[in-house]
Amino acid sequence: MTRELRFDPIRNRWVIISTERARRPNDYILSENGTNREDDVVFACPFCEGSEGKTPPEIFAIREDGSLPNSPGWKVRVVPNKYPALHVEDNAYRYATGIFDVVSGAGAHEVIIESPNHDRGLADLDVERVKDVLIAFRERIKDLFRDPRLRYVLIFKNYRAQAGASLMHTHSQLIATPMVPPIVKQELTASREHYREKERCLICDLINQEFDYKKRIVFESANYIIWTPFASSFPFETWILPKRHLHNYSIMDDDELSDLSYVLRLNLLSIKSLLNDPPYNFVIHTSPSKFLRPGHPEHWDSIEYDFHWHLEIIPRLTTIAGFEWGAGLFINPTSPEAAADYLREEIEDCAYKDLNKESIS
Amino acid sequence: MTRELRFDPIRNRWVIISTERARRPNDYILSENGTNREDDVVFACPFCEGSEGKTPPEIFAIREDGSLPNSPGWKVRVVPNKYPALHVEDNAYRYATGIFDVVSGAGAHEVIIESPNHDRGLADLDVERVKDVLIAFRERIKDLFRDPRLRYVLIFKNYRAQAGASLMHTHSQLIATPMVPPIVKQELTASREHYREKERCLICDLINQEFDYKKRIVFESANYIIWTPFASSFPFETWILPKRHLHNYSIMDDDELSDLSYVLRLNLLSIKSLLNDPPYNFVIHTSPSKFLRPGHPEHWDSIEYDFHWHLEIIPRLTTIAGFEWGAGLFINPTSPEAAADYLREEIEDCAYKDLNKESIS
Repeated sequence: MTRELRFDPIRNRWVIISTERARRPNDYILSENGTNREDDVVFACPFCEGSEGKTPPEIFAIREDGSLPNSPGWKVRVVPNKYPALHVEDNAYRYATGIFDVVSGAGAHEVIIESPNHDRGLADLDVERVKDVLIAFRERIKDLFRDPRLRYVLIFKNYRAQAGASLMHTHSQLIATPMVPPIVKQELTASREHYREKERCLICDLINQEFDYKKRIVFESANYIIWTPFASSFPFETWILPKRHLHNYSIMDDDELSDLSYVLRLNLLSIKSLLNDPPYNFVIHTSPSKFLRPGHPEHWDSIEYDFHWHLEIIPRLTTIAGFEWGAGLFINPTSPEAAADYLREEIEDCAYKDLNKESIS
Repeated sequence: MTRELRFDPIRNRWVIISTERARRPNDYILSENGTNREDDVVFACPFCEGSEGKTPPEIFAIREDGSLPNSPGWKVRVVPNKYPALHVEDNAYRYATGIFDVVSGAGAHEVIIESPNHDRGLADLDVERVKDVLIAFRERIKDLFRDPRLRYVLIFKNYRAQAGASLMHTHSQLIATPMVPPIVKQELTASREHYREKERCLICDLINQEFDYKKRIVFESANYIIWTPFASSFPFETWILPKRHLHNYSIMDDDELSDLSYVLRLNLLSIKSLLNDPPYNFVIHTSPSKFLRPGHPEHWDSIEYDFHWHLEIIPRLTTIAGFEWGAGLFINPTSPEAAADYLREEIEDCAYKDLNKESIS
């Protein structure tokens, strides 16, 4: 079995080769619609309350007072992924093979079960329950950042089979890696170059400009804005950006997480009602581990000035075809300004209904 | 209506915003399986022989002697895409808006109809007909490279709806852009850095190493190898690489195209029979236009030494989820060495059946 990261010297990016799951040609036979595995486990969902024994033992949970680990009584529960892409037991052994570079597959792959309830999505949870999920994210990043082998923790969510979810019960995931992932590295590099040249944060500059322009700002709370990026790769893509400069998600306090849970929930509700409950992904881009060596391009020293953490939400409305793969150039058929208009109106509507306890969507 | 390329200063990449097709939320309502539009046009396919009036007028065709443009009698036919992402009529106007950069949407978007026959895929065509398609690719690149506004021509194929095809009738496409696309730029940059350091081509070096290692070479002809890349992003990904150093697809002679049509057809047949006729994409990575200004990082002067054109084929067997989007780090569950073993055996089998005129798949 292979489980390692390999560097592609032509594309200048790492790839994970992890053959724990499908390997042989027959393992790839597609179901009728190409993706749908959602219903396979309705009668034996391992993420439901009372089925705690069906998952590996929990790593973290937010529980009612007095309830025991790996038993009912939890609000959010974090467990290792049963089919991990990277293993926490492996060593981070770095070596070269001829022209090529390899890192063995040390890392972590965890599942954040967002609710004991099988039938409610993240957008359907009360704002306090969304906050519990955001606290779980924070605590897992903090904990994994203690491991000197790891360089990054990427938190992400796949909603519905077409966005990559293999189980329907609401959950998100994290993968911790022994190197900084390529897209994060690009964002860090651009941010750092901007800071070194100007002694200003790139995303802070961008937020200031967008406040003047107004047309791509969807929503504003005490601490956050929802923005449709100027160069959105996908229709109705939004970013939640902290207004205050902050490089890492894991150093937010509870008040900031309260506000974030309100904003994230409204964002997800507006996408759900505007676009007919579409599949979506979200990812959190935060700064890397402090264990990168001083002098390393992504080292922590100045990262607190350079980088500006944010959360990116991508409804999966278009098919990624040969041009996008081959060019790395995405074709977005909805202008970010039009998307912002639609979403702004929808969010106002959701916020109004929410305030008046009306049902949304 | 918006039709422009926008630069993302955080991700360091261009995006095409082109609102000609879907724009409003309702335009994105998904069909039952999320993608399938294949059957919509079975009874009125605009790509069939006899339906030439249903497409915009042809730009190029390989025809029987004496047959007239835009009438039956063609073997391959190239027409403008009816819903182009970029328009050949637009000016390539470059400007800044605040912190952001824009190029207006000048370019070309064409469809290469690979056969007059509605029911045969590219893999099912005779090798002479595949060669006609490859000649059409060559002639279109040559012609578009005469336009000083254009910087790149990307040829790609989407096979089946899950890979992005909106019509079932066998076809490929090209998009010509007023800048070098991000992934091509990365490949050019890595190749050029290698050449400047070592006065050797990166891909030539890589081919030499892989000939020694053998385990990732699937097939070898007079002029080409089929390779499963060391850091394949996708299971059963293959590249067709010319053994002779050659930077641009469009300067190949007819003999080289004959051999390529044989190799490409075998590659597609082996994927079809091994993986149950899966959706796939292919893309051709070739060097950019000579109209880039001298001194520009992708300028032509030394490109003939730096770059090594190739064709990349990606069967679409896995779902791209939040982690892949957010990290740019792909998880491949089949090792390239195992994929090469399966494909090598399958290609031998296809070549044998082909020689003996037995039916394949």
